[in-house]
Amino acid sequence: MPALEYHLKHIDKHSGARLGEIVTPHGTFPTPMFMPVGTQATVKTLAPEELKTMGAGVILANTYHLWLRPGEDIVEEAGGLHKFMNWDRGLLTDSGGFQVFSLAKNRDITEEGVTFRNHLNGAKMFLSPEKAIGIENALGPDIMMSLDECPPFFESYDYVKASVARTSRWAERGLKAHQHPDRQALFGIVQGAGFRDLRAQSAKDLVSLDFPGYSIGGLSVGESKQEMNHVLDFTVPMLPANKPRYLMGVGSPDALIDGVLRGIDMFDCVLPTRIARKGTVMTSYGRLVVKNAQYARDFTPLDDNCDCYTCRNYSRAYIRHLLKANESFGERLTSYHNVYFLLHLMKQVREAIAEDALNDFRQDFFARYGYFKPNAKNF
Amino acid sequence: MPALEYHLKHIDKHSGARLGEIVTPHGTFPTPMFMPVGTQATVKTLAPEELKTMGAGVILANTYHLWLRPGEDIVEEAGGLHKFMNWDRGLLTDSGGFQVFSLAKNRDITEEGVTFRNHLNGAKMFLSPEKAIGIENALGPDIMMSLDECPPFFESYDYVKASVARTSRWAERGLKAHQHPDRQALFGIVQGAGFRDLRAQSAKDLVSLDFPGYSIGGLSVGESKQEMNHVLDFTVPMLPANKPRYLMGVGSPDALIDGVLRGIDMFDCVLPTRIARKGTVMTSYGRLVVKNAQYARDFTPLDDNCDCYTCRNYSRAYIRHLLKANESFGERLTSYHNVYFLLHLMKQVREAIAEDALNDFRQDFFARYGYFKPNAKNF
Repeated sequence: MPALEYHLKHIDKHSGARLGEIVTPHGTFPTPMFMPVGTQATVKTLAPEELKTMGAGVILANTYHLWLRPGEDIVEEAGGLHKFMNWDRGLLTDSGGFQVFSLAKNRDITEEGVTFRNHLNGAKMFLSPEKAIGIENALGPDIMMSLDECPPFFESYDYVKASVARTSRWAERGLKAHQHPDRQALFGIVQGAGFRDLRAQSAKDLVSLDFPGYSIGGLSVGESKQEMNHVLDFTVPMLPANKPRYLMGVGSPDALIDGVLRGIDMFDCVLPTRIARKGTVMTSYGRLVVKNAQYARDFTPLDDNCDCYTCRNYSRAYIRHLLKANESFGERLTSYHNVYFLLHLMKQVREAIAEDALNDFRQDFFARYGYFKPNAKNF
Repeated sequence: MPALEYHLKHIDKHSGARLGEIVTPHGTFPTPMFMPVGTQATVKTLAPEELKTMGAGVILANTYHLWLRPGEDIVEEAGGLHKFMNWDRGLLTDSGGFQVFSLAKNRDITEEGVTFRNHLNGAKMFLSPEKAIGIENALGPDIMMSLDECPPFFESYDYVKASVARTSRWAERGLKAHQHPDRQALFGIVQGAGFRDLRAQSAKDLVSLDFPGYSIGGLSVGESKQEMNHVLDFTVPMLPANKPRYLMGVGSPDALIDGVLRGIDMFDCVLPTRIARKGTVMTSYGRLVVKNAQYARDFTPLDDNCDCYTCRNYSRAYIRHLLKANESFGERLTSYHNVYFLLHLMKQVREAIAEDALNDFRQDFFARYGYFKPNAKNF
């Protein structure tokens, strides 16, 4: 049995969005699915049991962070990441590439790999496609990513062209280095910034290597939502229909719905937990900054349409008090709500697809919620 | 029906320790009991449901902190502290006196009350016995404390004598100001530092006012364990046997056992949660600093004799990783363990009393655990 199976269940006849399921060695989860991010082997502030109660079937962890701390050897010695962090459902790791390009310093990219100084203690390190796969094999997630370069969206055509070609060669090297294709599914990552022909070249290169799934990288990195959707419009059809499609780093409610409409099955993002810790929550009426003074005497829940643990038991006034008083239970309550909000949203999206009604659902949702507008002060 | 009833169930025939129960408007809890501290209307990092799962029947909140933030008026408007913080069992507030003397600045004590500048924004404030009771009436806990002065243990006899007399007058004023004796039980606080005759005077004054329960204050403030036990040896017998006795601010395992042996029914302390957040846990073998490097590859639980959520699911290596990586879930896991440890210890103590075996239990416990030695680096 392969490490991963994708079963297509239904295609919304009006929108084209697809309903499916992904079978992993640690259980099956329905798609489209949002995957909460547990960067350092924990989804910040939340317990595994809470994530399960919310319906999370798969979560993410970060290869770069765990490589640096505690070290993949310790995680392997613990019996793998699932056991280390007490998570028995689906688990996915990125390749570490994105963090090397966003967090590390003094980067030097060659054909062989990337030399850099890490963000924790400045030590010089080297990451190659083989090394990334070696770390991911040691960590032992169900789904792992090839090492890619994620160039800025507005990088030059020539740079992105060379980068895409190298990312394809790195993907092939990673595939060869992979030790456990029987129990860990390795995905290729389609890059190419906003260039249609480069996205096509990237997709063609990777599809020829026959990965069990494909990620779309290099989006949600500063371009507009319109530009992102435009790239998805032409990139998704380049990917095989019988494999899962994962849009990396996207987690605002509007972008999730628009991604699903374009055929995406999986999403991940730190957005829900990151903004939660700063006091911003997602509600069915849009973004709400519960830390604001106007909620000091507001004894209603964060969202009166929400039935999560936080909304069933706590008021805006109490949560605001906890956040103002630097009590971590406040961050826990907002994080719980935001992660639940996205998991619940995706459940509603799946139900809408099953009824060929995602277009209507989108229209209703956007009428209430609008586009997610980040508030610089709260990030 | 009075706001509080104490039922004496059994006295250990060898040690004299007592088993009982306290009935409050929010349920009955067995004694001796340790009360976790939720200073700012939350027991740091823990959810109410978790505290209930551990067997907590009563928790503390701090009048001074809630007066300052969010303000007792907001808590009252929320429907009281129970509702505000989602806690439906026993709830106790201190009077704010201890915090005024330990946290606030520019204190000026007169017969009328205390003027001070608060520790949050330096604003000038005034706390009197009537004001403290007014705040506690607004917060609405089941058990509340009289405003007292807590002088340093090694203060002069003359100072402590005058202070004790004033604390007695303040207790009487508080009793008169109390608006809800039907649903909130007000305790008097016995002071007197290490002076036997002043403790006796304090106890006599307060007992004549017939409070539904008595606290012993002014201990665990720098004196040795031996000195504390000595004070308890002569102070507890000065208190009526048909009322609960609460030793304030004491929470190390050895001090709990030694307090119970001297007839104490209730204890509270921030110790378990405070040291937990710094990476120190209590185990059946003594104190363990899980943050230390020696536990990086230790895949055993914090305490292999413990069956708490943390010990059933997580290793020392994982918890150390979380703490080193500044992940609040690490603080949550150590806090859970430490609070459970004390609640479970008190359960064992109650079982030992029921079997007239607390002396034996103490001997076994101390043989493994010894005295709790704080580590300055980890506080």
